[in-house]
Amino acid sequence: MDVKTYIENNKERLLEELFDLLRIPSISAIKEYKNSIRDAASFLKNKLKNLGLDNCEICETAGYPIVYAEKIKDPNLPTVLIYGHYDVQPVDPIELWNSDPFEPIVKKTNIHPEGAIFARGSCDDKGQMYMHLKAIEVLNNTSGVPCNIKFMIEGEEEIGSDNLEVFVKENKEKLKCDIILVSDTGMIDKDIPSITTGLRGLAYLEVELTGPNRDLHSGLYGGSVANPINSLARMISNLHDENNRITIPGFYDDVIEYSDEERKKNGLVPFDINEFKNSLEINDVHGEKSYTTLERKSIRPCLDVNGIWGGYTDEGSKTVIPSKAFAKISMRLVSNQNWKKISKLFKDYMKKMTPTGMKLKVNEHHGGEPYITSTDSKAYLAASEAYNSVYNKKPFSVKDGGSIPIIAQFEKELGVKTILMGFGLDSDAIHSPNEHFGLSNYYNGIETISNFYKFFTK
Amino acid sequence: MDVKTYIENNKERLLEELFDLLRIPSISAIKEYKNSIRDAASFLKNKLKNLGLDNCEICETAGYPIVYAEKIKDPNLPTVLIYGHYDVQPVDPIELWNSDPFEPIVKKTNIHPEGAIFARGSCDDKGQMYMHLKAIEVLNNTSGVPCNIKFMIEGEEEIGSDNLEVFVKENKEKLKCDIILVSDTGMIDKDIPSITTGLRGLAYLEVELTGPNRDLHSGLYGGSVANPINSLARMISNLHDENNRITIPGFYDDVIEYSDEERKKNGLVPFDINEFKNSLEINDVHGEKSYTTLERKSIRPCLDVNGIWGGYTDEGSKTVIPSKAFAKISMRLVSNQNWKKISKLFKDYMKKMTPTGMKLKVNEHHGGEPYITSTDSKAYLAASEAYNSVYNKKPFSVKDGGSIPIIAQFEKELGVKTILMGFGLDSDAIHSPNEHFGLSNYYNGIETISNFYKFFTK
Repeated sequence: MDVKTYIENNKERLLEELFDLLRIPSISAIKEYKNSIRDAASFLKNKLKNLGLDNCEICETAGYPIVYAEKIKDPNLPTVLIYGHYDVQPVDPIELWNSDPFEPIVKKTNIHPEGAIFARGSCDDKGQMYMHLKAIEVLNNTSGVPCNIKFMIEGEEEIGSDNLEVFVKENKEKLKCDIILVSDTGMIDKDIPSITTGLRGLAYLEVELTGPNRDLHSGLYGGSVANPINSLARMISNLHDENNRITIPGFYDDVIEYSDEERKKNGLVPFDINEFKNSLEINDVHGEKSYTTLERKSIRPCLDVNGIWGGYTDEGSKTVIPSKAFAKISMRLVSNQNWKKISKLFKDYMKKMTPTGMKLKVNEHHGGEPYITSTDSKAYLAASEAYNSVYNKKPFSVKDGGSIPIIAQFEKELGVKTILMGFGLDSDAIHSPNEHFGLSNYYNGIETISNFYKFFTK
Repeated sequence: MDVKTYIENNKERLLEELFDLLRIPSISAIKEYKNSIRDAASFLKNKLKNLGLDNCEICETAGYPIVYAEKIKDPNLPTVLIYGHYDVQPVDPIELWNSDPFEPIVKKTNIHPEGAIFARGSCDDKGQMYMHLKAIEVLNNTSGVPCNIKFMIEGEEEIGSDNLEVFVKENKEKLKCDIILVSDTGMIDKDIPSITTGLRGLAYLEVELTGPNRDLHSGLYGGSVANPINSLARMISNLHDENNRITIPGFYDDVIEYSDEERKKNGLVPFDINEFKNSLEINDVHGEKSYTTLERKSIRPCLDVNGIWGGYTDEGSKTVIPSKAFAKISMRLVSNQNWKKISKLFKDYMKKMTPTGMKLKVNEHHGGEPYITSTDSKAYLAASEAYNSVYNKKPFSVKDGGSIPIIAQFEKELGVKTILMGFGLDSDAIHSPNEHFGLSNYYNGIETISNFYKFFTK
């Protein structure tokens, strides 16, 4: 039986299995979901065992466990390591979801008239990660898996992969491989495949600005005491200049500027600015002067406030000057910025901007380095052929604005490059309410990954 | 029996009655407390009835009811109208309270070695308002009430007194009086009495800034889309210039500048800047250039963000660009600023500052006009004598930074001035966690108010 036919014959079950995984609310950022995290790990261990893999284990870490499994067919054959994650983002604002984030349903959309799976994690990353397990099932039932494989699936990607980093450092021999395969990125459009050859790094910090030692009545004190919210707003405002460049001293020092030729080549990637604006219902774009929107969201660094709070935020009004104001602030980094260095520059600058009479605390949440890879490796070319065999189109090489900090870490610790075979779409609303993943993306993903092994071992 | 002795003999019961009132969580800003609001109104109606007042009634409004009662002894005698409020501020942040905000307890403090009552509303305004009921009890049991009295106690002061305004407009005849007495302000220090002869006005608005139509992944979009939190922070920052003057065009147009002589006189009011800083644990003050701290918090207008929120504010991190950011912003106004005009100037300026690609909504919460009164009226002099009879000191005339919007409204609708006999202290933490009211302030307040009637009718 060929790959396509096998998938067609097993369509419903392939979907039902994913639904079972999506029903587990494995949110890593919120502690009360810790049992669900372990349920997701057990689920995957069992599925890997059923695929005939050896040494299936739930590897404990200081945080949430890593699911590992392997099939060493012949030590002389090349080894592919598959990485993915089973944890998901929080669901807030929950009121904007049109269905239960943990009760997957298939609904038609304009982009997916054949249907899309709506659930938290449907695309990021349960849906995409699970395609790799199902590709092994497909190969088991068709031509067989032609090389050695190892699975490493973690539960802390959405909170920084800190313990995976430790695990990789401590298990270099176990994780030895020739290439790493990951599906946790996107493609340009439903029919326009792409392979991500660049990722931005990340530095994520939280600031707490304290003014008076208690909340004050804004009538009795207003005008005479620095208000932490007003002051934090000013500090945040001062992080960008009038050209929307980041003002942190030294921030751009290590940024590699692309040549005109490289910018031109990157500019060939299909991108429709009007579609972009329409999809977000904005009438204007915004960003660093002298760069295109595509560049701003991929090869240029940026700084965003991801959350802010302070004072009275309930219904109605309260005339208060709060004692404290808070913000979560993250920066996306590009080569060759170093997240620890950037975090320090950020802290120093925020401290410098803190008004007299106030105290600042800055905590690091997590970070990761940017990553770049080439388009002429054997694995890249095999992936390119695999996409071509399903989509009848060679994929574009694209730089992605997101961060998968562990990818740079893999290269540093294991000396191995990663091929990012993404099947998500920008419109999938990952990290947002109503996250979804096209049915055809799921099935085509399984087929493309199955075919990858053939071209890679050819 | 004299006033002092009567109070001394009834000390415990006078406190227990107040405790019963303080136990009712009559928070007007949060709808779920609506039954408690009505409980507080009933409690007061019964107490007024027990004092022998006539026409005790709970007057319904479009919102929470107004408690009214009167005793017309002789139409030829002068009439005193007592105004206060039985609603209280919300209690958040609840985790900073050292005891249940609605289970009053007496604890000693440095400022109140004899003890202070800790509870939400103990000072603002249940404690101060209830002194007026108890003063009538004292007079009933001593020399008798020497004039006509009317009580009007509302339940929406903390949310803007909108319906009281309607009630006053519709009941001008019923509320006819010669002077209005209010205890909802402070005194300079425990042994330094003062009468408030100025109040700031208030304009309180809420802004909602919308960028993209949904929350976005900050990796995929970061740098290419205006982030509502960053943009709102910039707009807020731009509301003050480098001299901490408010930048809203026209904002200062109607502000009456005090003469050097008046500023000098106001400057005689005792104020210790070091004590001020120490009590707030700040090492520097902050405010409009060329004005003293005392001036900044009393006779100058100001602008504060009272609350801000947007994006992910839970524990941990979420890499999101939110669709919306929100802020509650209020301005304290001085004569002759008009709150409706200022609100409009604010809206216009915020609209003008809204970046292209974003949408702004501004809603008015409430507002009120500033108020000033003179120090040579019969009622002011009577109040001054009353304080002198208890504290052995004439009170200072002070301008208060807070707002009681209805006071200006009383003058406009009823043509009557108000005497603000305050007994709270700045350190009482009104609107904050651990609000309290000194026991001696409570008892001295009852005595001072009882004595007022004697001097007023002399």
